[in-house]
Amino acid sequence: MFAPVYLDHNATTPVHPRVLDAMLPWFSERPGNASSRHEYGRAARKALDEARQRVATAAGAHPTEVVFTSGGSEASNLFIKGAAACFKPGLIAVSSVEHPSVREPALALGRQGWKVHQIAVDAEGRVRRDDYAQMLRDQPLLISVMLANNETGVVQDVADLAAQAMMTHAWFHSDAVQAFGKMPVNFRDLNEHGVHALTISSHKIRGPKGAAALILDKHVELRPLISGGGHERGLRSGTENVPAIVGFGMACEIAVQDIELKAARLRALRDELEAGLFAQGATIFSQAAERLPNTTYFAFSDIDGDTLVGKLDRAGFAIASGAACSSANPEPSHVLLAMQVAPELARGAVRVSLGADTTAAQVRGFLAALQHTLFQLKRLTAVAV
Amino acid sequence: MFAPVYLDHNATTPVHPRVLDAMLPWFSERPGNASSRHEYGRAARKALDEARQRVATAAGAHPTEVVFTSGGSEASNLFIKGAAACFKPGLIAVSSVEHPSVREPALALGRQGWKVHQIAVDAEGRVRRDDYAQMLRDQPLLISVMLANNETGVVQDVADLAAQAMMTHAWFHSDAVQAFGKMPVNFRDLNEHGVHALTISSHKIRGPKGAAALILDKHVELRPLISGGGHERGLRSGTENVPAIVGFGMACEIAVQDIELKAARLRALRDELEAGLFAQGATIFSQAAERLPNTTYFAFSDIDGDTLVGKLDRAGFAIASGAACSSANPEPSHVLLAMQVAPELARGAVRVSLGADTTAAQVRGFLAALQHTLFQLKRLTAVAV
Ligand SMILES: Cc1ncc(COP(=O)(O)O)c(C=O)c1O
Ligand SMILES: Cc1ncc(COP(=O)(O)O)c(C=O)c1O
Repeated sequence: MFAPVYLDHNATTPVHPRVLDAMLPWFSERPGNASSRHEYGRAARKALDEARQRVATAAGAHPTEVVFTSGGSEASNLFIKGAAACFKPGLIAVSSVEHPSVREPALALGRQGWKVHQIAVDAEGRVRRDDYAQMLRDQPLLISVMLANNETGVVQDVADLAAQAMMTHAWFHSDAVQAFGKMPVNFRDLNEHGVHALTISSHKIRGPKGAAALILDKHVELRPLISGGGHERGLRSGTENVPAIVGFGMACEIAVQDIELKAARLRALRDELEAGLFAQGATIFSQAAERLPNTTYFAFSDIDGDTLVGKLDRAGFAIASGAACSSANPEPSHVLLAMQVAPELARGAVRVSLGADTTAAQVRGFLAALQHTLFQLKRLTAVAV
Repeated sequence: MFAPVYLDHNATTPVHPRVLDAMLPWFSERPGNASSRHEYGRAARKALDEARQRVATAAGAHPTEVVFTSGGSEASNLFIKGAAACFKPGLIAVSSVEHPSVREPALALGRQGWKVHQIAVDAEGRVRRDDYAQMLRDQPLLISVMLANNETGVVQDVADLAAQAMMTHAWFHSDAVQAFGKMPVNFRDLNEHGVHALTISSHKIRGPKGAAALILDKHVELRPLISGGGHERGLRSGTENVPAIVGFGMACEIAVQDIELKAARLRALRDELEAGLFAQGATIFSQAAERLPNTTYFAFSDIDGDTLVGKLDRAGFAIASGAACSSANPEPSHVLLAMQVAPELARGAVRVSLGADTTAAQVRGFLAALQHTLFQLKRLTAVAV
């Protein structure tokens, strides 16, 4: 297979070799169902317990606060729909830049009699304090604001937002799928500031697809989305995905090791990348906001994002246009529209997200390929005109 | 690790070596998110399409009828809760021997204003036609009857039951998690008889945990449990678990190859096992009913099932007591209680479920170990008295 340089780590990440090694015995050699009462079952249960401990330690939580799910989308749906089912319809507030896995469940509640407030963001993609304070006055029951955005990388001050919401007694959830593993995330700290639940996902941190967790304050009552055998304290039934959960545990442990060092390395690479992009005339989104160290989101006016992604793919660099996580969608990114970016510029949006194995040579190679591609595209435009 | 002979294939199965081989490249070498528009994303999308085709072929369905989920429990919850959300509360009927992943969603609807009819079974565990016909007169909206039971192995005549229900216009679902791969299952045939949806699950057929499917008639309208990016035609959002789905596709292909031959081999082994059990004085459940070829469910009066499972585990044989799929539950099996088995006898219930690699020598070894264990247990009882 033709193997472009992978610069799309916010979409998904290659599994770390040590993670895969940890998973392998659980496929064929140790085939236990963790509910079975024999040697294989007990071994599987022990592996799950250890993985739960690893995830909890990495996220600053207690193992009993970890609810395993099949993915980040499931975890956020579980929180939003599961908590809503314990209330009479009221107000739910989510930021206007949420991932669809938070936004859509909120909109679904909107079709069931809930009022949905989409909290405005400023031009950099940060939650607007005035709109947030206004919303709090309407007695929300549920609030969800993501820790870091998948497109822009913008980090919200979730601890502060949650603290402000405390007096409303709303349940506060934060989608930490992109933040976790790229910056320090500590549930205990956040919980003390009033955050009741966090979503984290394995495949974004070099773990396998098929595992994720809702880190959940035990005071929060939830109805399960998936009921049955009563697994995960009744919050998520279904035979536990032992290999994926074991891999997730290992990935968490690896992700938080030397996280500050790794973040600093990525930030330096990203800064070099952005200097190059700027020199080539790119508009870089959210550059003035606090952002994840690995993410850059930019556009060239008059150049379509999808076209650029296609050309760069053939030139050997895998990057994303608009939001890579949702299915084919011709609309410009809702995140950029919420930031009041002009639709024409938003259609040009392209995201580069670096990973643990990204090198400076790859970043320079990317900048060279981009320059070449832009030159070609502009010549084409010139000829067409 | 101490490695007992694995005779618990209805709980979960070891992954087939060819399945694992098919999965491996998708963890690290080909890390694509199937929604990404670059080489890695397209490769992942192609792999998903191929797996969908394989699953569809094995289940006698069209690829567009396959909705991938994370597990059988999710698939059945999706059908029951997802269909119910499109109706005003009415009547849902499920057999009284369903797996908790069907039973619990039905009971959950019961707490939301639905009437729940649990269809009675006879002493062999077969749906009672009189009770079923009676229920149909009450205009059910949803019906779910499993194709084969996980504990007894009893096969229901789902095609006939669905055909009878056609005039009520109820949506008819069947949990085929245990049947699929152990007997021929053809969605097209079943669909012509009025079955609208089937649940199948990868880890029961030597595929990995983390993949399953709801095979769904496209006339059925469902609300998703997990909303977000709009994956699986909007019915199941979340980054697709590429390695698991690829493995599931391969497992389906392998499972249905020579299925009649494999079933005949297992049936012969199971018959030998049951002759030996009978000679040792076991009561074998549902022996007069049509059953899966690999499953035997039995009890010795005065001997506790859990105790027997524990002793046999130490003697080198991994089997199940009661229902292995649900979490620790001291109650006797609801399946046996629905069959009017006396609770004392039901507490003794033990299940042996053979797999593709089970040998005659293992079955004979099991019978010898059982005889020895029974001898010990009876001597203990005698001493205690
Ligand atoms: C911010 C954010 N939240 C949630 C998700 C969904 O997670 P998952 O793909 O594990 O369902 C993603 C990526 O897909 C994401 O980037
Ligand atoms: C009959 C039956 N249905 C459903 C399930 C649930 O499937 P899964 O474990 O894939 O959620 C099982 C086993 O766990 C089962 O035996």
